[in-house]
Amino acid sequence: MSVVVVGSVAIDSIETEKAKVEKSLGGAALYFAHAASYFTDVNLVGVVGTDFDVNEISYLNDRRVNLDGLEVVEGKTFRWGGRYHKNMNQRDTLFTELNVFGNFQPKIPDQYKSSDYVFLANIHPDLQLDVLEQVKNPKCVILDTMNFWISGERASLDKLLKKVDILIINDEEAKELSGEESLLKAQEKIKAMGPKTLVIKKGEHGALLFTENGIFASPAFPLENVEDPTGAGDTFAGGFVGYLAKTNDVSDENLRKAVIYGSTLASFVCEDFSFNRLKDLEEKEITERLDAFREITRF
Amino acid sequence: MSVVVVGSVAIDSIETEKAKVEKSLGGAALYFAHAASYFTDVNLVGVVGTDFDVNEISYLNDRRVNLDGLEVVEGKTFRWGGRYHKNMNQRDTLFTELNVFGNFQPKIPDQYKSSDYVFLANIHPDLQLDVLEQVKNPKCVILDTMNFWISGERASLDKLLKKVDILIINDEEAKELSGEESLLKAQEKIKAMGPKTLVIKKGEHGALLFTENGIFASPAFPLENVEDPTGAGDTFAGGFVGYLAKTNDVSDENLRKAVIYGSTLASFVCEDFSFNRLKDLEEKEITERLDAFREITRF
Repeated sequence: MSVVVVGSVAIDSIETEKAKVEKSLGGAALYFAHAASYFTDVNLVGVVGTDFDVNEISYLNDRRVNLDGLEVVEGKTFRWGGRYHKNMNQRDTLFTELNVFGNFQPKIPDQYKSSDYVFLANIHPDLQLDVLEQVKNPKCVILDTMNFWISGERASLDKLLKKVDILIINDEEAKELSGEESLLKAQEKIKAMGPKTLVIKKGEHGALLFTENGIFASPAFPLENVEDPTGAGDTFAGGFVGYLAKTNDVSDENLRKAVIYGSTLASFVCEDFSFNRLKDLEEKEITERLDAFREITRF
Repeated sequence: MSVVVVGSVAIDSIETEKAKVEKSLGGAALYFAHAASYFTDVNLVGVVGTDFDVNEISYLNDRRVNLDGLEVVEGKTFRWGGRYHKNMNQRDTLFTELNVFGNFQPKIPDQYKSSDYVFLANIHPDLQLDVLEQVKNPKCVILDTMNFWISGERASLDKLLKKVDILIINDEEAKELSGEESLLKAQEKIKAMGPKTLVIKKGEHGALLFTENGIFASPAFPLENVEDPTGAGDTFAGGFVGYLAKTNDVSDENLRKAVIYGSTLASFVCEDFSFNRLKDLEEKEITERLDAFREITRF
């Protein structure tokens, strides 16, 4: 089954203790597409400015990523700059320039509209609702959102959540959305808002999966070198949704495996800046890390 | 195999958002003993003042805890007060009164000296070294320590680490001890200091086990209600060491199981103040939670 992803395409500036990388490609939709395309066809919807050299991502066309939905409009591409703390888990946003992304009105190309899996990366919930009006009865809608919309656009978000099958957010967002400090209490409240399945990402501490039937707790894959965690959450989502779409199976057993695939792809993306580590990543490497994941968690 | 534990016995004052409990029993050695006694005989060494009513813990005698090594000396017992933040993961120390614990000189009773497993709870590393001089060739020495000694008593701690088989510390302590932000790099450096096995506790995020042969990553057991996390680390150590001593097996396979037993006991202790949840905890409940642990981690 193919996947539609709607979200940001960005030009990032990243600073860490060790390095500074200007104008590296980023954005939720691109990170997602890199990861998901290991598993299935990906239809990308996003917008860039005329300063974005689409040739730089043309290799994605050879990797099952359809870029027909990537609009190029007059102006500058969305730009984000961030600086990571020494621990690599916290970061400060240095600047956010929405540019053409500020007027993004997602248009789903006709050939995307029958995709069974839809990933709504973090954008305004009204736009995410609009996307769902354009696609035809998807089998599974997966949503990402953030604190900004949870606090600022709650009515729209509440309406959206009713149409969502799987919500993927981080622990702080889950607490804010539910008003609960305990993640177990938070997930109950969130599931009552609409999504029957919830994935709570905890960065270097792994992820929790909550379904109607139970809980799955996974550690993150321990990494020796974290060069740039930017996009790890969207890469997780790409591995997770990509695997679900490939197998077209949203059973509990398969959702657990999807979490591990998501965590595996996310672990790779942190090992280098931008998508560098994902560009030439071989399926064999993914399989090996999955085996290593199994080895470090068995008892 | 029996275990000797040397450490604090305390009277705590605990405040949370929901409750305030004065004069509840605590201290590393007592938390450890409660947990370890589910698995094996525990020989406790500690000190209390004449204000401590030993009858309050006499039930431990019926539970394989030998209190012959608990000295009662003129004066007041060690007192500690803390207030937990709403998230229950952070706390402020309100007061620390060492009292008779400030002059603690551990004396290992003769009948304890042939114990094969020795747990050195967090006290001055010189005293921990002194304990090791008193015991006869233990099979396995397990150490806890803290930032205070890592920064303030490094020479003694370095000497001690050479005599230790297993070090149990938290993630911040591991970073400070090694000077590395990456836990994978930290564990390499720490293992070079002496202990061949290292357990890094991450509170609600679980624990990592590093041996000469590999890594094991375990989540914490997800809890609906956390009433009081005080002593969770020492309770983890009690379950971990208790299980190792019972099975007398420090193979990688068994160390992994010991981590799960430690995490299981630690999950229970958080569900009520002081040792309340551990007093009447039945083996059946431990087995059930272990099964639940297996269920939430399998994929």
